[in-house]
Amino acid sequence: MSEPVKINRGLKGVYFERSGVSDIDGAAGTLSYRGYSIHDLATKSTFEEVSYLLIFGELPSAGELAGFDARLKAARTLPPQVHDIIRACKDGHPMDVLRTAVSALAALEPESQQVGEDAFVANGIRLTSQVPMIIAAHDAIRNGRDPVPADPDLSHAANWLWMLKGEKPSAEAARLADVDFILHAEHGSNASSFAARVTIGTEANLHGAIVTALSTLAGPAHGGAAEDVMKMVAEIGEPENAAAYVKAKRAAKEAVTGFGHRVYRKEDPRARHMREGVRQLGEEMGAPEWYEILQAVVEAMQPYARHGLNVNVDFYSGVIYQLHGIPMDLYVPIFAIGRMPGWIIQCIEQQRGNILIRPLTLYNGPEPRAYVDPDRR
Amino acid sequence: MSEPVKINRGLKGVYFERSGVSDIDGAAGTLSYRGYSIHDLATKSTFEEVSYLLIFGELPSAGELAGFDARLKAARTLPPQVHDIIRACKDGHPMDVLRTAVSALAALEPESQQVGEDAFVANGIRLTSQVPMIIAAHDAIRNGRDPVPADPDLSHAANWLWMLKGEKPSAEAARLADVDFILHAEHGSNASSFAARVTIGTEANLHGAIVTALSTLAGPAHGGAAEDVMKMVAEIGEPENAAAYVKAKRAAKEAVTGFGHRVYRKEDPRARHMREGVRQLGEEMGAPEWYEILQAVVEAMQPYARHGLNVNVDFYSGVIYQLHGIPMDLYVPIFAIGRMPGWIIQCIEQQRGNILIRPLTLYNGPEPRAYVDPDRR
Repeated sequence: MSEPVKINRGLKGVYFERSGVSDIDGAAGTLSYRGYSIHDLATKSTFEEVSYLLIFGELPSAGELAGFDARLKAARTLPPQVHDIIRACKDGHPMDVLRTAVSALAALEPESQQVGEDAFVANGIRLTSQVPMIIAAHDAIRNGRDPVPADPDLSHAANWLWMLKGEKPSAEAARLADVDFILHAEHGSNASSFAARVTIGTEANLHGAIVTALSTLAGPAHGGAAEDVMKMVAEIGEPENAAAYVKAKRAAKEAVTGFGHRVYRKEDPRARHMREGVRQLGEEMGAPEWYEILQAVVEAMQPYARHGLNVNVDFYSGVIYQLHGIPMDLYVPIFAIGRMPGWIIQCIEQQRGNILIRPLTLYNGPEPRAYVDPDRR
Repeated sequence: MSEPVKINRGLKGVYFERSGVSDIDGAAGTLSYRGYSIHDLATKSTFEEVSYLLIFGELPSAGELAGFDARLKAARTLPPQVHDIIRACKDGHPMDVLRTAVSALAALEPESQQVGEDAFVANGIRLTSQVPMIIAAHDAIRNGRDPVPADPDLSHAANWLWMLKGEKPSAEAARLADVDFILHAEHGSNASSFAARVTIGTEANLHGAIVTALSTLAGPAHGGAAEDVMKMVAEIGEPENAAAYVKAKRAAKEAVTGFGHRVYRKEDPRARHMREGVRQLGEEMGAPEWYEILQAVVEAMQPYARHGLNVNVDFYSGVIYQLHGIPMDLYVPIFAIGRMPGWIIQCIEQQRGNILIRPLTLYNGPEPRAYVDPDRR
């Protein structure tokens, strides 16, 4: 070979496609969906509106939003076999149960087999409504309760909390869940969205790609940060222990969870909205120590910020879930609820002018050798 | 930006990792597993031996092979809930049902949550035995029969046919299935193996990665060729119609299914073994016309061979399955049975010195714009 082959480990810095959905400037620490700053969307918009924006490219008119919302609400239904399937594997991790149920929906709903832009929109809207239903139904079933039926009068976020807890959430709690979903809705070519695109590249259907995305999100290095941060906060216990904790971690060359991101070199722009949520919620609920521990960790990590080790979005979200009394193993499934529109639009983008995504591995195994019969080995 | 960004669509020609498993020379039309030519393995080895070779890197001694075979046979068992889950979605496509059941195994078998080389080997051996059991059980259940229990006296291939048909296969039929599995066992960074690696890149477990692989294999552009070829053969009907069929397809600028491959520029080296299988089996079963139709298509495609449009492995395999009376919607699941060891070893390789696989998309959406309140849209 005349030229040495370049190996792009982790495909870091390699562009494989154009996308008009989200713009991430890692150096500047900015994120926008379809040109709109995440800060505007997190403070002024709703998950339903952001989903419409991501999928169709523009903010909806009042009529368009009402129509889209009606489609989402009409899709709050599950084939009865899904509850049977959840019951059959109810003791598993909620991500495994969620993935199993979504996979089963492909077998149970014939329209899920269709491929193309209109089919992906229709199937995507259905899955967006079904994913929180599955998670809430599983949590009810594993706790010996009947699943709570969806309430068509509630927003996506409020209905999620209603189905999960069986009581109507406060306006503040619903808004915090709504903001959480907005912040998680889309994030460029992250591993789960990229994996979903690889699946679509073989002309698979949307359900297959969402199953792939769920498998990929379940890895601790992708969706697991919120859970890990919560464990860290519990381990630290008091704000005054944070500095020693960080020092010990750095000395042992171990990562401090919730810090650093493949793309961002400054603070993850999504973090500030969750930080404010933790502060307010902690005060309201008479538990300000969580916020204080987190901020003490941030302060102790300050010397490493110039190495790009800034807080990411999931540094704060786990504590919010904890304050709401949500079990730790539901943190990644909640991420999935939020990420649905991002996965859907990336699958839609991929199937336009689709191409098989098939990079190469450079062979470094044994040279050609002759087969040896078993009795001579 | 000073330099224009290069977009590597489909990641064509991009190397993302080294791999010591299979070596594909697309220009020469050669394929080897761990240094052993596919031609030697297809004629002299067995699926069990090839699985050992792929996973552990060397051909096994007699004792090592016996031990490995015993582990595979001991793993021919499914938790009873898997049959319940299959029953709940029995009318779905077999690939969707298979994926649902494998996903459920992650929830049903706690050891599937473990990550690392030993865990991946143990969980991989279990899944290798369970995948054909699931496919056969589903086919029995959807036809109103009870699943056939595995037979510990039979080889992997013979046991598969036994569970599928409820009768002991002839030595020839078992050998043909064995060769089919060997030929499909591993093929570099194909889309399903690559997608599985992306899932492992987030530190997910093997079951999650196999679920991803199944979703990706299900796409018609990856695993669907055998089924499409069979449909084409049925459409052509007689050998003398082949030339006109090919001419019409080329005139309409449509692809002739079973020809061409992202990697091979010469004939797919796996094709010859399946071709010989079709010829022999067709003669034995008094149905030589299938072989004749296929060869007439190959002849009609000859002028396009220099454009890299040579037959691929699945050009012949569909007809073999058809001659065995296997329903068309099981062709892709059969591919999955064969590909298990390739997926497993690639996941093992990936988790050694693991890295998040996260390429980039280049943003081409709207410029930054201000949020507009709903009543002013």
